[in-house]
Amino acid sequence: MPTIKRIDHIAILVDDLDGTLDFWRDALGLPLAHTEENPAEQAKIAFLPAGDSEIELVKPTTDDSGLARYLEKRGPGMHHICLEVDDLEGMLAQLKEKGIQLINEEPRLGSGGKKYAFIHPKSAHGVMVELYELPG
Amino acid sequence: MPTIKRIDHIAILVDDLDGTLDFWRDALGLPLAHTEENPAEQAKIAFLPAGDSEIELVKPTTDDSGLARYLEKRGPGMHHICLEVDDLEGMLAQLKEKGIQLINEEPRLGSGGKKYAFIHPKSAHGVMVELYELPG
Repeated sequence: MPTIKRIDHIAILVDDLDGTLDFWRDALGLPLAHTEENPAEQAKIAFLPAGDSEIELVKPTTDDSGLARYLEKRGPGMHHICLEVDDLEGMLAQLKEKGIQLINEEPRLGSGGKKYAFIHPKSAHGVMVELYELPG
Repeated sequence: MPTIKRIDHIAILVDDLDGTLDFWRDALGLPLAHTEENPAEQAKIAFLPAGDSEIELVKPTTDDSGLARYLEKRGPGMHHICLEVDDLEGMLAQLKEKGIQLINEEPRLGSGGKKYAFIHPKSAHGVMVELYELPG
């Protein structure tokens, strides 16, 4: 059976990356591991490890992406939670069997060889859930 | 220096605990560790461990609590993120020094002897952040 291993990250949508780092890095003291541009998401992302998980601060870099529209509509705040799973294809099959609506029916390939897929918030009662399978 | 150790939990506000467990427990396969009534929060809470953290599903049990009003206004979804800190009083002092607005200026005492405090979402750029110090 495919198994959730841990919370990989919490993604927080921000309109000002430096201003938000004032809180997470400078006030709370979380380390800033790195930042990267993500052209696919049209966003700049700051990664701050917390124990076995990460806080990701996501700043849209264009005005017309899905993230930018979400930010404009709902304002800055938590955007999604990402869970690591040991077998993403198996999990997606299990979810479909249970009638869960997926944004990505098949795993997509992200940076560093990780596989990911999003579950539709409708099926997760208002929460955007991402699943990761990390390369072994 | 007070240090964030990990993400303790993500709290998700729900309007139907059983319906939401259909997703988190029955479809994703997360274990349901236990549920408890929390009279202070006027909520029933389901705890689902994920690695070193937990997903908490929070269902208001009255219509007029802060949680119930938040649910009515924003709908079901992520409510707050809780970080474990090794020294809560030290962290609150550090946050005040940095000009961060706190909901709880002093640690409050929760179940099992844990100390907790909430940071105001204004200072955390739209995110409700809770801090825990667990009994040693």
